[in-house]
Amino acid sequence: MASILIVGAGAVGALFGSALARQGAQVSVVCRSDYDVVSREGYDIISPLLGNHRFYPHEVFREVAECRTPPDFLLLTVKVLQGVDRAALIRPAIGPRTVIVLIQNGVDIEAEIAAAFPDNEILSGLALVGVGRSAPGMVNHQTMGQLHLGRYPEGHSEASERLAAMFNAGGIGCKLTDNVVTARWQKAVWNATFNTVSVTGGMLDTAVMLGTPESTAFIQQAMEEVCAVAAAAGHPMHPKLIGQLIGTTKSMPPYHTSMALDYKYGRPMEIEAILGNTVRAARKHGVSTPILDTLYALTKMIEQRIAAT
Amino acid sequence: MASILIVGAGAVGALFGSALARQGAQVSVVCRSDYDVVSREGYDIISPLLGNHRFYPHEVFREVAECRTPPDFLLLTVKVLQGVDRAALIRPAIGPRTVIVLIQNGVDIEAEIAAAFPDNEILSGLALVGVGRSAPGMVNHQTMGQLHLGRYPEGHSEASERLAAMFNAGGIGCKLTDNVVTARWQKAVWNATFNTVSVTGGMLDTAVMLGTPESTAFIQQAMEEVCAVAAAAGHPMHPKLIGQLIGTTKSMPPYHTSMALDYKYGRPMEIEAILGNTVRAARKHGVSTPILDTLYALTKMIEQRIAAT
Repeated sequence: MASILIVGAGAVGALFGSALARQGAQVSVVCRSDYDVVSREGYDIISPLLGNHRFYPHEVFREVAECRTPPDFLLLTVKVLQGVDRAALIRPAIGPRTVIVLIQNGVDIEAEIAAAFPDNEILSGLALVGVGRSAPGMVNHQTMGQLHLGRYPEGHSEASERLAAMFNAGGIGCKLTDNVVTARWQKAVWNATFNTVSVTGGMLDTAVMLGTPESTAFIQQAMEEVCAVAAAAGHPMHPKLIGQLIGTTKSMPPYHTSMALDYKYGRPMEIEAILGNTVRAARKHGVSTPILDTLYALTKMIEQRIAAT
Repeated sequence: MASILIVGAGAVGALFGSALARQGAQVSVVCRSDYDVVSREGYDIISPLLGNHRFYPHEVFREVAECRTPPDFLLLTVKVLQGVDRAALIRPAIGPRTVIVLIQNGVDIEAEIAAAFPDNEILSGLALVGVGRSAPGMVNHQTMGQLHLGRYPEGHSEASERLAAMFNAGGIGCKLTDNVVTARWQKAVWNATFNTVSVTGGMLDTAVMLGTPESTAFIQQAMEEVCAVAAAAGHPMHPKLIGQLIGTTKSMPPYHTSMALDYKYGRPMEIEAILGNTVRAARKHGVSTPILDTLYALTKMIEQRIAAT
């Protein structure tokens, strides 16, 4: 039976942890802010996909260091934020055979962890899930619920197959990919543009961002910059990707991006993981990205303003 | 005695009108929103420069068409907004010898009026004044109070000298310039950047916009784009202008731009006059302005969102 530790067990971590626990894994969580409720009552999960249920972790820790036995898999589900040393955060629970699983947003988020733990296997995952925390210990799963998972930097492994099988058995559709870095760039084409434009526009929903031919052309140009960076980094995107992303977004009811919601509710925004790493990759590979540079400068100023108030 | 009609007599128009009236001009106003109060009680003006006083216009009109005698000078002080036909607005009061005086923000705002009134002299003015309307008919003059005035498209004239003398006699320092279009571009270097960045950042004050080396470098790059457009349009800026503008802005207490305040209070923003005309001039002259294009796309989306709510 696999032992799993989830670090940063917010909404995504709790939902995914409960799926793994349902098929028998021993799932413990590190949960700081909701510790009191979760250690007493577990998680109350509302989910159309997994059914409404209560999830009692094997153990609930306040700190990573309280976990004395290194887990088989450590799932890191915290946000990737400037000033948060993720390697230092997880180090106390990492054993020689612990597989580190990054279920986080952004591009180029693995290198720092790979450098810190050169002997550990690293899996990288992209969650496609609409889930939120409605109160301490309460998880409200609204829509979707898939995971794209791959070995970092590429390929697959016994561990990736094992974890994918556990997710699938537990009800979370997990698609294995041999090129998870390419998958991250694909996701960044949407994320780096819509997320940051929604914020620099002060809470724009997708309908406004695609509301006029001019705004759609602008979004498209920004996406082309991301594609140029991805190609220069060795991950060329399909020529039809941008058209597909815009078409799909237009066909859905208007909605607010995760970064816009973070902005609205005063939560930290994943600017560095989603956009900062993209513009740094552009500099590294000599790609000109004036639109992304502008969006980056503006979102960083917004962050400064929030920090100052 | 000169007859003067002020169209759009908000805070700037009332303050400047009162200065002209103090030295004997016959100053009438077209004042729609505050008509009731102003026609009954005039304007209540609080001003450290002109002193606190009450300004009773010669006549107060609701509509331009009510002014039956064409004035010697028609001062247009409304905002330059998309969808507002300024030529149609003032046409009913323009006589063959009426001098049209545009005291408005932005670049390239004169051509439309010059085309509509090819036989009238046009003066163009830039107000440097901090003044607001605190209640109907109440004008609160906080700081500065100068006017840069010139004949359009260039040079000077008997009319420009006459009007400047009246302003100076009335207490508003009026500086005549032979190159008012160049002066507009100079002002746009600051306005097109700080105004639009303050809005796309959701109410950033000048201190945040110049808060880090990165943000300052970004502002500088945006200003360089405006300078490149100005140069291509035949109005090269002094090489030290950007450094001076940034230095001066840094040395002042943090403040909010006029566009940020318009945004905050839900008032129309002068995006087209300040930034739209700049990017259109860039296209016309083949200048690449990716930062300004991005700021323009974002501010237009913000405007769309406001219009939709």
